Formats: sequence, structure tokens, C-alpha cells
Amino acid sequence: MRAAVFRNGDLVVDTIPDPVLGEGQVLVRTRACGICGSDLHAAKFPAQFAALAKRGGARWNIVPDRDLVFGHEFVGEIVHYGPGTTGRFAPGTMVTSMPLTIAGQTVIGMGYNPDQPGAFAEYMPLSEQMLLPVPAGMNPDHAALVEPIAVGVHAVNFARLQADDVALVIGCGPIGLAVIAALKLRGAGPIIASDYSPGRRTLARQMGADIVIDPRTTSPYAVLADSATPPGFDASRYAALFGIGPQRRGAVIFECVGVPGVLGAIMEGAPANARIVVVGVCMETDRLEPFFGTVKQLDLQFVLAYTAREFADTLAYIADGRVDVTPLITGRVGLDGVKQAFADLANPEHHAKVLVEPWR
Amino acid sequence: MRAAVFRNGDLVVDTIPDPVLGEGQVLVRTRACGICGSDLHAAKFPAQFAALAKRGGARWNIVPDRDLVFGHEFVGEIVHYGPGTTGRFAPGTMVTSMPLTIAGQTVIGMGYNPDQPGAFAEYMPLSEQMLLPVPAGMNPDHAALVEPIAVGVHAVNFARLQADDVALVIGCGPIGLAVIAALKLRGAGPIIASDYSPGRRTLARQMGADIVIDPRTTSPYAVLADSATPPGFDASRYAALFGIGPQRRGAVIFECVGVPGVLGAIMEGAPANARIVVVGVCMETDRLEPFFGTVKQLDLQFVLAYTAREFADTLAYIADGRVDVTPLITGRVGLDGVKQAFADLANPEHHAKVLVEPWR
Repeated sequence: MRAAVFRNGDLVVDTIPDPVLGEGQVLVRTRACGICGSDLHAAKFPAQFAALAKRGGARWNIVPDRDLVFGHEFVGEIVHYGPGTTGRFAPGTMVTSMPLTIAGQTVIGMGYNPDQPGAFAEYMPLSEQMLLPVPAGMNPDHAALVEPIAVGVHAVNFARLQADDVALVIGCGPIGLAVIAALKLRGAGPIIASDYSPGRRTLARQMGADIVIDPRTTSPYAVLADSATPPGFDASRYAALFGIGPQRRGAVIFECVGVPGVLGAIMEGAPANARIVVVGVCMETDRLEPFFGTVKQLDLQFVLAYTAREFADTLAYIADGRVDVTPLITGRVGLDGVKQAFADLANPEHHAKVLVEPWR
Repeated sequence: MRAAVFRNGDLVVDTIPDPVLGEGQVLVRTRACGICGSDLHAAKFPAQFAALAKRGGARWNIVPDRDLVFGHEFVGEIVHYGPGTTGRFAPGTMVTSMPLTIAGQTVIGMGYNPDQPGAFAEYMPLSEQMLLPVPAGMNPDHAALVEPIAVGVHAVNFARLQADDVALVIGCGPIGLAVIAALKLRGAGPIIASDYSPGRRTLARQMGADIVIDPRTTSPYAVLADSATPPGFDASRYAALFGIGPQRRGAVIFECVGVPGVLGAIMEGAPANARIVVVGVCMETDRLEPFFGTVKQLDLQFVLAYTAREFADTLAYIADGRVDVTPLITGRVGLDGVKQAFADLANPEHHAKVLVEPWR
């Protein structure tokens, strides 16, 4: 089958062996697969990604000198069933799945493992028991957005949101936008969003942000503090210390950038007692001042991915229109366009989500 | 009055003006005041402490070129009442208090403010409404330990402990020992404690640790993982992913060291889903790999001090014998011994807590 292969630091189109179905697996023809920020990270820092993943005990297994096929935000069509399956959905059924496939009893992550090609390829061997059919009436392409939106749903579920909390989203790439959508679903407000890019700020508003900020001209932390502080509150006063009179609303800040320095800046800018949910994936060593964490009793909750339940819930949210992902799809390419799309995605004005369509 | 004054980076004994009582204040003769690790930090890095406190919005107000009197873990005896007081306790009553005094409506932190001497001085102006009398039958010196033990109680209250959680305490100085005591109070177990110092490991056992580790020879993270992992659990297996069969117990790690590098090492060593409670106060820039936080969904909860309720509860715990602080008091000095005690406290084999007795 044809695939976009990451080889010696480059992205090339080549023919690789068709998947051989193992016990419980189903052959699925890829219809569409989104390009994820993590793919860009891994392509930019393959050695660091591999070394950190190994030290971190992740189930990813990048080996820099072996071919790798990225792609873990996919939708496709059932072609045929392998051994040990029940055939629960008819061939031709459009399905998505968490990007994990099960070989015997072992779980393999898809998209970052040289032993298991990801979805930038014509076919995928998926596990029958993890398949989720695309509901009738849903645009099948939208099912490729379940994975990134589920990341936002999971981040918001981990945030221990209180009814009165004010939320700030730092960075409005696809993951920040997913967090905004998930906050909107939960009825949180105000939702403050900050990004340097005008295009992304427009998307932030479309996904549900109430206040959208250009950090070049306005401090998102000042807006957050204003939104969380009722009239008459003064932290230096006796009344504040003993909980008498107006109290600050809780603040939750979502880090959706994932480059060094952002976490430290958030810790410095955050109001006291803020919860910081770290959704961005930073692949480099970072520097920060723990002292800001201490004096403000900050909480940093790092989050990854989603649960099976959150993934299925997210498919339903998109299917029934509670989350509209239409604005997020800003481009489509065939396998031979993947390399250029990786380059284009570096510019936040060009794209949010690019879908790879291996059948083109 | 006589006081140990931090002046131009040195600790000298000098005579400073007696406190002038403001509205609601009471003059208290200092009986004893513990030397805190934060005092050592502030004396070692006064400029950084001042700069960070200012950026962090803390209520401390160190000005490097002004005299400062440390001391915020105190017990003393009521001498007389100032204006606007009710005289609720008789003169001669032994009292402690959170190290905050209230001037009018403004709260002032004691021990790090050049406008308000701390307790390494003969007298203190305390707020009547914050006074807690030392219960009858309690050794009054033990009331000087309420402050550091309350830090441990607060840290454990912030840890969101579940019944089955395994706890690891990294660093067994006074704060680590306070955390161990608070974990024991809550019935947590096993409590694993790690310190390079044999003397501190002995104290850790006395305060309630179940497993005590020398990290030179044994990895505390390996012991934590062993203690939290039931037989048959394998994170790479299908059953683990879907919550079928034996699951890992929760893990909570208390960082009680406060020097650069420790947080990063804990993040690398921690098991997946661990909560890390950062109790140590790190005054320097730190470096870490956020990626370990991400792949293991770690939570870092920074904590500071305690609430008024926790402070009062801790006094009761010590008074009624649920926490025995006797082993922690390893030395006593007069004001002229403060400088040497600061030097001696650098060696963990010499001391846990040194009490300053300004009346000597």
C-alpha cells in the first residue's frame, strides 16, 4: 500500500507492505487522517522524542533510524475481517477508533511505532473491539476530528471545574480550540482565549470563547484576574484572609502551546490558587521558578489523551452538533502533499487542521 | 529590646526599638522560636528572595539593605494589652499564633518584613484575635513546633489522599518529618521516606514512616512502584488499559527538599498518575522535562503554609499527644547563638529543629 513515510528526517511517499491482520483485527481503508501537532514535534525532534518517550515509559516506540508512518486522527471504511473477529459491523461501515490497536493482549499505540504504520497510509489494521461506527447523518470527515476534540474534553474533565470558575486558554491551535469547545459544552464562562494569530483568534471565537485576546497588546493574566475578582476584594486585607466578604472566583488556565517558557510565564502570571492544566506537549527541557508555584499554591495538572469513554462521548458531541468542527478543517492533501502540509502548519495563519486523504 | 538582626548579610545581636502596640495588638514576651529552613534560604539568597517575593505577590517584603528580624515559629507569654483589645486571656498566659499580625485592616507577615520584627527578639506585637492559648498540661516549648507541623498537616490536606494511596516523602528535614507525622495522623500507609542522612532517617521512623530509604543504595521510586503495584499488574497489557483485573494503587509524592533538580527527578521517577505535592520552597530557577508530566499525567500541587483552622488543629494534635514533637527539638540557643545555629543547621546530622530562646 502507499504511505507517507518518515525516513531519515524526511517525509517521502513509498509503497510499504499491506497490513497483515492479527487476532481480533479488521482491515480499514483510510478515508481521512488529521495532522497533529505531535506529528510536527516528532518530525522536528525525532531523537529527543524517542529518548524522552523511552525514559517516560510511554507506549510509543520511535526508533530514529527506522521508517515510521504517522497518523492517529483517522476515519475509514471497513474492508474485511481478520481471524478471531465477530463481524459486528458490515463491510463498508465508516468507523473511527482510539489510535490503539491490540495484538493479542498487548496494546500498541498507532502513529509513533515503526512496527505498526499509522493512518497516513491506505489501510490500517484496527481492533474490532475498539471500533466506533460513524453515526448516520454525520459527515464522516468530521470523525477524524474526534481524536483532537477528545483531548480537549479530557483536559476539561481533569480540570476539576467548579461552577463559578473563570477559564483562560493560552494558545489557540487545534488543541486550544478543542479545549474551548469542551469548556463551552460544560457551560463554563467566561472563557478567555489568547493567541498571537488573528486567524486563530477568529477560530477561538467560533469555537465558543467569550473574550479573545492578542497577548501583544493585552495581558491575558490581567484579564483573567479582572474577570475572577469581584468588586471590593483586596487580598492584603484581613477580610480576604479570613474569607469574609467577596471572594475571588476560581481560575483555571489551560496551557495549549507546548514550547519552553510558556509554563513558567503562566506560573508567574497566574492568580493565587489557580489550577493550570498542561495540555501542550513540550519536548524540550523547560525552566521555571517553583517559587511562584509555592507563594500562589498553584496546581499543575499534566494531561494526556482521553479515556475510551471520553472518545466515544466526543464522537456523539460532534455527531449531534454540540461541537461544530467545520471551521477547524482548513485543508486537505493527498499522501504526496503531507510534506508540504507539515511545512505549512508552521504558520498559524494558514491552517488549523489539515486532513490527509491517502486515496487521492 | 534585644534581637538577632539580619544586617548586610550577617546575623548580629543588637538592641532595637520595643514594639509599639497598634489597635487590637497584645505585647507578648517570646519564650521560644524555631529556626526554619526558609530563614536559612532567605539569609543565603536575600536578593533573590526579595525579587521573587515581589514578583510572586507574596505578603513578605524583604528589602535587602534594611535590617530584618527573622522568626515565625513562636510561643510566648502575654505581657499587656494594647488599644482596642478585650483582654480575653490573663497576662502570663502562654500563647502561640499564626505568624501574621493585623494592623488595622492590613495583614502583615511576621519574620520577613523590615517593618515588623519577627520572634528572634524579646517581644512581639501579636493580634489578640489570632492568639491561641497553649492548653493546660502541654509543654509550652512544643507550641513553637505548631507552625512547621501545620505545614505538614496542610500539605497532606491538599494531597486529596484516597484510602488506598501509597505515600513517598522525599527529604526528611523538619518539613518532611511534619508531613510524615500528618500522614500518620491520617492513617495513610505505607509511608515511605527517603533521605541521605542517617540521623534524619532515624527521625523519619520516629515520626511514623513505615519504610525508610537511603537513596544512595535504593531507589525510592522503585520502592514506591513496588508498594503500589499489585501482583499481576502490567501497564502494557489490554487488561490494564481497560481497568480489568488488578489496578495500581494511587501514589502521592511529597517534595520536601526545595533545591533545583529534585522536582525534575521526582517527575522522572514517579509512577503514572502520581500526585506530587511540592512542600519544599525552591528559591532558584529550576529545570525539568514537562514531557514526563505529560506521558504520566502527573499532578504538581504546590502548597504554602496552612489555614487558621489547620494551625489550631495542629496545636490540639500536639497538645493531646497525637503528634509527639519531642524528637524534633535538637538544640536551644540564645540570641547570640543564632548565627552559629544557622551554620550548624546546614549539617542534617546535627539538628532537626533549633529553638531560639531570646530571654537567655
